[in-house]
Amino acid sequence: MAQAFWRRGMNGTATFSLFFRGYPPDRAFYAVAGIDSALAHIESARFTGEDIDYLRATTPLMPDFLEALADFRFSGSVRLVSEGSVVFADEPVLEVTAPLVEAQILETALLNAVTFQSAVLTKAVRIKQAAGDRPLVEFGARRAQGDEAADLASRCAAIAGFSGTSNLRAAARFGIPSTGTMAHSFVQSFEDELTAFRAYASEFPKSTTLLVDTYDVEQGIRNAITVGTEMRAQEHNLNAIRLDSGDMDALSRRARRMLDDAGLTEVKIIATGGLDEHSIAKLVSDGAPIDAFGVGTRYVVSADAPYLDSVYKLVTYDRRNSRKLSPGKATLPGPKQVFRTSQNGIFTGDYIGTAREAPPNGSQPLLETVFKNGKPKAEPDDIETVAAKLQQQLEMLPEEVKRLKDPEPYSVRLTPALESLIERIDS
Amino acid sequence: MAQAFWRRGMNGTATFSLFFRGYPPDRAFYAVAGIDSALAHIESARFTGEDIDYLRATTPLMPDFLEALADFRFSGSVRLVSEGSVVFADEPVLEVTAPLVEAQILETALLNAVTFQSAVLTKAVRIKQAAGDRPLVEFGARRAQGDEAADLASRCAAIAGFSGTSNLRAAARFGIPSTGTMAHSFVQSFEDELTAFRAYASEFPKSTTLLVDTYDVEQGIRNAITVGTEMRAQEHNLNAIRLDSGDMDALSRRARRMLDDAGLTEVKIIATGGLDEHSIAKLVSDGAPIDAFGVGTRYVVSADAPYLDSVYKLVTYDRRNSRKLSPGKATLPGPKQVFRTSQNGIFTGDYIGTAREAPPNGSQPLLETVFKNGKPKAEPDDIETVAAKLQQQLEMLPEEVKRLKDPEPYSVRLTPALESLIERIDS
Repeated sequence: MAQAFWRRGMNGTATFSLFFRGYPPDRAFYAVAGIDSALAHIESARFTGEDIDYLRATTPLMPDFLEALADFRFSGSVRLVSEGSVVFADEPVLEVTAPLVEAQILETALLNAVTFQSAVLTKAVRIKQAAGDRPLVEFGARRAQGDEAADLASRCAAIAGFSGTSNLRAAARFGIPSTGTMAHSFVQSFEDELTAFRAYASEFPKSTTLLVDTYDVEQGIRNAITVGTEMRAQEHNLNAIRLDSGDMDALSRRARRMLDDAGLTEVKIIATGGLDEHSIAKLVSDGAPIDAFGVGTRYVVSADAPYLDSVYKLVTYDRRNSRKLSPGKATLPGPKQVFRTSQNGIFTGDYIGTAREAPPNGSQPLLETVFKNGKPKAEPDDIETVAAKLQQQLEMLPEEVKRLKDPEPYSVRLTPALESLIERIDS
Repeated sequence: MAQAFWRRGMNGTATFSLFFRGYPPDRAFYAVAGIDSALAHIESARFTGEDIDYLRATTPLMPDFLEALADFRFSGSVRLVSEGSVVFADEPVLEVTAPLVEAQILETALLNAVTFQSAVLTKAVRIKQAAGDRPLVEFGARRAQGDEAADLASRCAAIAGFSGTSNLRAAARFGIPSTGTMAHSFVQSFEDELTAFRAYASEFPKSTTLLVDTYDVEQGIRNAITVGTEMRAQEHNLNAIRLDSGDMDALSRRARRMLDDAGLTEVKIIATGGLDEHSIAKLVSDGAPIDAFGVGTRYVVSADAPYLDSVYKLVTYDRRNSRKLSPGKATLPGPKQVFRTSQNGIFTGDYIGTAREAPPNGSQPLLETVFKNGKPKAEPDDIETVAAKLQQQLEMLPEEVKRLKDPEPYSVRLTPALESLIERIDS
């Protein structure tokens, strides 16, 4: 496609708009992530000599076009909503305005960055919502879809307010808190469970969490109580026990009673093993005495919604606004802006409008210019800024839109200016 | 954990076994991938000076242990089934035998490599099975869970026998065929659809596929017929039209009729857009005149089974065979082997046995030693070898086990030697 454009001199200015179509089950909003990765892609997009040689050898692309690719640099502009923002279906998340070939070539990289990371940040937000004030740790790396996915999911968990990740590589890479734990293999490596627990407690007396379900859970809890009592005598406290299988509600109540009866009221109970927002919400609402949750697999791949229906669509070329009309997949034409209204600190509805119109009364525009003439206008937001942005937006989002099951749709309308642009194009 | 082992001098030999527990919906076998990545991880596992500094600054790990980590090299052995093999739940896919700390530290990387790639290769096999002889192309990169996931999924598609991928980076990286296509934005960039089609045809007269649903599908087909007829006059052939939305069965029949009526009987019809093994199987069995399929999103994240229940469990430490007994999660003890029987070129059942016993009558052992004393014994299989292995194994797999819906379980039993080992441990 790029060659056909280039050889025809079709390198007029194009605008592409990246947005989500509809929602996966039980969602009525998206928390945007991947902006950082998307901007890095735009800035570093190049064709190396090796790339050009490969294309020459394996594709029908022409020598003159390949030469042009060797000089490829992004020279356009990018407007986008900042990472950590809440957005809704059909709203532009990111718009690229650039010579047609440049804007087109970025499609796959931008969609890849924003789709996966927004899916997983939205999942993290849902899990955090279910857990409420109870701390959450993330340990999904082993089941993530590749190394990079593991790291990006750990980053999104930190943005959503998780307390730690077991992924040390991600912790180092993004400067987020790491956390360790004991696996069943640790217990199995010793002659018996009690010996294993004592060994761990003597190694990390300030942060001992004992996994109690390797053999028999009740005996595991009794062994943890023995070690917890021994730690007391040395003026240390057992931090927690961890339940990783079985009926979490019943087991946590049983464990709490046993710990309390032994005077270990300060020892916490952590639940892990196949948890997601729905099972956590149920445990919390049923009053299970669980102090913290760990999530892995179902979080890291966003198991109930492993992809989002994201698209990157041409909306203007060479001053001609345009829209695709495929059934169920029609797009809104032209460069656009999102205007958000709020009242008493709660969002009350969005308008999708044209990029150049004045904000409707009292509304805030969401998209900001971050690249101009191929140059970034500022450093990407750091992770604390993104987390704070997200937190603030979630506080302003109506409760019924945040509901974990059967949420209500948020009001998104078109401005009269965009409505009349659509009419002009369709007629 | 590793520090607690190390400081106690618990560095005896351990064996860990990596296997899948149970199946996701509609699956009764796994096609193994990720072996290549797993071996690369083992060979390159190191802690850099930067890693050590990070751990010193952020974790409670002790200086003496951190010094030991700086010298970390894998010195053990690895036995595994070769990439492209078919395996079943509970069968060891990979076993690491090494000093306890070394074997433990590899857990996350090995699970990450084998879990995702086996999930996606199994999905690719299912899609290929549905499509039968019809060519398949893969273009999931934009919705993959990160860049790396996109590349690995393209590699798995090639292993399963897809004809091409739109992911040029993966094509270059793994030496697999790439394929291009036209997006809606191409059509939209021109004054009208017919002009866009003519431009594409003149650019790639030997490989023109026209996307016909940007505006109105029937008119799109008529425009494709116009261009196909014009190409004939220049002694070229229009390769195909592509349908990307709507009722694929009805549209493909309508398009076939229109093309045939225009004398363009050689022009193929390609269907894309939200397809998976089930929708493809239905189109094929209903006789829709579709010549090739393209899959993206639902393939690349293995949408109906985005993770597998894979584990890496300690089965022996310091000559003591061991098993975890958590309810529903009990493991088979000791180093193991899988023995496969067959008759008339069809697999008839597997036995999971101990690593050292002689193969039961007429059976073939599956696990081979690929690392010995920290050294790889051979180069990893190249992609053609893996693809041939997979093809051969699928041909031998009983039809009822391969069924896309409600497959029948394959027979996997334990050998008497393993049964009595379990009895000795449990008593």
